[in-house]
Amino acid sequence: MSATQVTDDHTQAQSLEADMAALGTAAREAARVLAVASADVRRAALNAAAAAIRARAADILNANGKDMAAAEESGLSGSMLDRLRLDDGRIEGMAAGIEEVATLDDPVGRVLDVRDRPNGLHIERVAVPIGVIAIIYESRPNVTADAGALCLMSGNVAVLRGGSESFHSSRAIVGCLHDGLVAAGLPQGCIQLVPTTDRAAVGLLVKMEDDIDLVVPRGGRSLIERLMNESRIPVLAHLDGICHTYVHAAAAPDMARDVVLNAKMRRTGICGATETLLIDAAVVDALPGIVTPLIDAGCEVRGDAAARAADPRIGQAEEADWGTEYLEAIISVRVVPGLDAAIDHINRYGSHHTESVITADDAAADRFMAEVDSGIVMHNTSTQFADGGQFGMGAEIGISTGKLHARGPVGVEQLTTYKYKVRGTGQVRP
Amino acid sequence: MSATQVTDDHTQAQSLEADMAALGTAAREAARVLAVASADVRRAALNAAAAAIRARAADILNANGKDMAAAEESGLSGSMLDRLRLDDGRIEGMAAGIEEVATLDDPVGRVLDVRDRPNGLHIERVAVPIGVIAIIYESRPNVTADAGALCLMSGNVAVLRGGSESFHSSRAIVGCLHDGLVAAGLPQGCIQLVPTTDRAAVGLLVKMEDDIDLVVPRGGRSLIERLMNESRIPVLAHLDGICHTYVHAAAAPDMARDVVLNAKMRRTGICGATETLLIDAAVVDALPGIVTPLIDAGCEVRGDAAARAADPRIGQAEEADWGTEYLEAIISVRVVPGLDAAIDHINRYGSHHTESVITADDAAADRFMAEVDSGIVMHNTSTQFADGGQFGMGAEIGISTGKLHARGPVGVEQLTTYKYKVRGTGQVRP
Repeated sequence: MSATQVTDDHTQAQSLEADMAALGTAAREAARVLAVASADVRRAALNAAAAAIRARAADILNANGKDMAAAEESGLSGSMLDRLRLDDGRIEGMAAGIEEVATLDDPVGRVLDVRDRPNGLHIERVAVPIGVIAIIYESRPNVTADAGALCLMSGNVAVLRGGSESFHSSRAIVGCLHDGLVAAGLPQGCIQLVPTTDRAAVGLLVKMEDDIDLVVPRGGRSLIERLMNESRIPVLAHLDGICHTYVHAAAAPDMARDVVLNAKMRRTGICGATETLLIDAAVVDALPGIVTPLIDAGCEVRGDAAARAADPRIGQAEEADWGTEYLEAIISVRVVPGLDAAIDHINRYGSHHTESVITADDAAADRFMAEVDSGIVMHNTSTQFADGGQFGMGAEIGISTGKLHARGPVGVEQLTTYKYKVRGTGQVRP
Repeated sequence: MSATQVTDDHTQAQSLEADMAALGTAAREAARVLAVASADVRRAALNAAAAAIRARAADILNANGKDMAAAEESGLSGSMLDRLRLDDGRIEGMAAGIEEVATLDDPVGRVLDVRDRPNGLHIERVAVPIGVIAIIYESRPNVTADAGALCLMSGNVAVLRGGSESFHSSRAIVGCLHDGLVAAGLPQGCIQLVPTTDRAAVGLLVKMEDDIDLVVPRGGRSLIERLMNESRIPVLAHLDGICHTYVHAAAAPDMARDVVLNAKMRRTGICGATETLLIDAAVVDALPGIVTPLIDAGCEVRGDAAARAADPRIGQAEEADWGTEYLEAIISVRVVPGLDAAIDHINRYGSHHTESVITADDAAADRFMAEVDSGIVMHNTSTQFADGGQFGMGAEIGISTGKLHARGPVGVEQLTTYKYKVRGTGQVRP
């Protein structure tokens, strides 16, 4: 390496640090303004942003064309190209999604608790925005619009860092979000795109603990693990969705069959898809009836010895299968001796995401739901319902498998924290 | 270093790792039992533990005598010795404190939200224990009893790591807590003391992310900073309590005087003590009347040029004073041109703990309380009220200055998280 190159690298690194520091300062300043902006103002900004996305669809498609051309040239896979591609329908979907976020109940200012003390102090616990949220994601450009909208509706500044392959698309979308902010009289700093595709920017971002309050990664396991290890800022994410459906001894066979088929096969690529079927030894005779529609739908079934004994169409599961999130048309099957063994298996191999028990025995269901240590536990229904929209909570930024702050779907309510407001008349503490 | 020594160190490190792994496994197993223990069982364990502390007071005093002798020999300071010392009064205080925790409302099982979906799904968000909580603290042995009791009442397993100087005292107290657990039929693993004073144990503890869900440090800034840097597990803590009282232009002078005196001097060593007084330039004439009772009570006053011009008894404040938590009889004073400058100062130099505004102008107070980014914001009262007991929340394990999960006092309710329970009748997702 020549001396000139070292100097250039050094200068580039300094310049990146300066850029990121400026972004952080602008974010913190914007957060103070946004925290006290009314819901009407935030909604107006969202609706104006949606209008801008429609009005500037051609610009967005043009920018997306640049990203697509570069991605094709660099040999990105077909499924990655599909995630990256925008068209008129997807642009309309983004605009409509932003408008839908604008209709959500305002999560800011909710009075969560009131206490009147004997000394006359009046204490309220009030929901407030978290502050500045960094969202780090991969190639889908529509996350730019979704995440920006959810943060804005919850009064949080969004610092967006998309995949480098979607940089031009994201910049065009952020331009529309800025139009919305300006139209509503809010600073553009409320939604910021990291202005470089340099990977070093992410390393800097997750150490800006003075200016960023929360990191929300959306992407593959390696991205999330890296961020969890590197970040000095709290991270809200799910690593895996290794979801289970347990067919209990008192399950109705038809319900078990229909729910398992849906839980696995409705969409195999979402985090709420069931990856492992546990079936009680008492009803192992029902296994072929459950497996047949799975196989008919193109699903590979891998089981333990007992499962294979009950149905020779089942292939062999290895130990590693119990801890694998397939995200495709594969299911692992284990025969368990009873409820306790099912709970043990899930708490040991699962990822604390979503698990369902199929049974007509309410007491067994209650025990399952109490003792399984997951963010979402279900009785007689499909794990594919694990979704903020399906819960009636509106759009979500993801599903948290951590235990602190928020578990399960992370919508606008979960993007708030609270403060205590204490009002007195001169009270001093004895 | 000889080869033998290397082998010994290596063996010791292996043995410590094995001990900590065993502790973690026992904690996780106990957590599953404790998570479904009824409030009656948890209360019975607490009351039996309090009885054991009274019955075995002589054993505790004997163990504390060993700690005190070693501490005196090693030249611990007088204030450290006082923190370490137990006597009959302090032992009765521990027992009574545990009994009080047993009277708190059960935080587990609260239904936080109910949703009935159009498809018939019934969704409840239910409070559940966090799981396993590691509490890392310094010399006060009573924290062993307090923290153990708060975790138990909230259904959490406690892994306690006290200061090495209080090891014998803490072990005796944990023995009594174990008596309580056994009397109520709960596993002893519900409350565990790290069985060594080896400092390396803390480094291992904060990386046991599979077995420990939350780390709560109680101690000085250096301990907490170290844990925040090293921990792979979320940390709930407050680094500093740099609290402010702002005397606004519309403050009643007598109220300002009385509240400031209390906020600073009632107890100078607690995190809710005011460290900086901000006074509006419009009422700077009131400053001598506020300063006089502070000086009479033995408080050193350090101010900026404008404060010193208003009262020559005030010494000079340096830039570093604005970011210092004195925890003693010193206060810094700054004259600010108005509400915005006061908010800016607090958000820049404060620690997001507790701040109070003194004013007869409710609109100004509302702005202060909205824009100051602290866990507790107050109007016309003393920052010394920042305390879970004073808020009517019962005993607390500390005050959180972080924004995620819990802000302000951390009592039994804040030591819970939630899960979603979804009940269906065979619904599948379209």
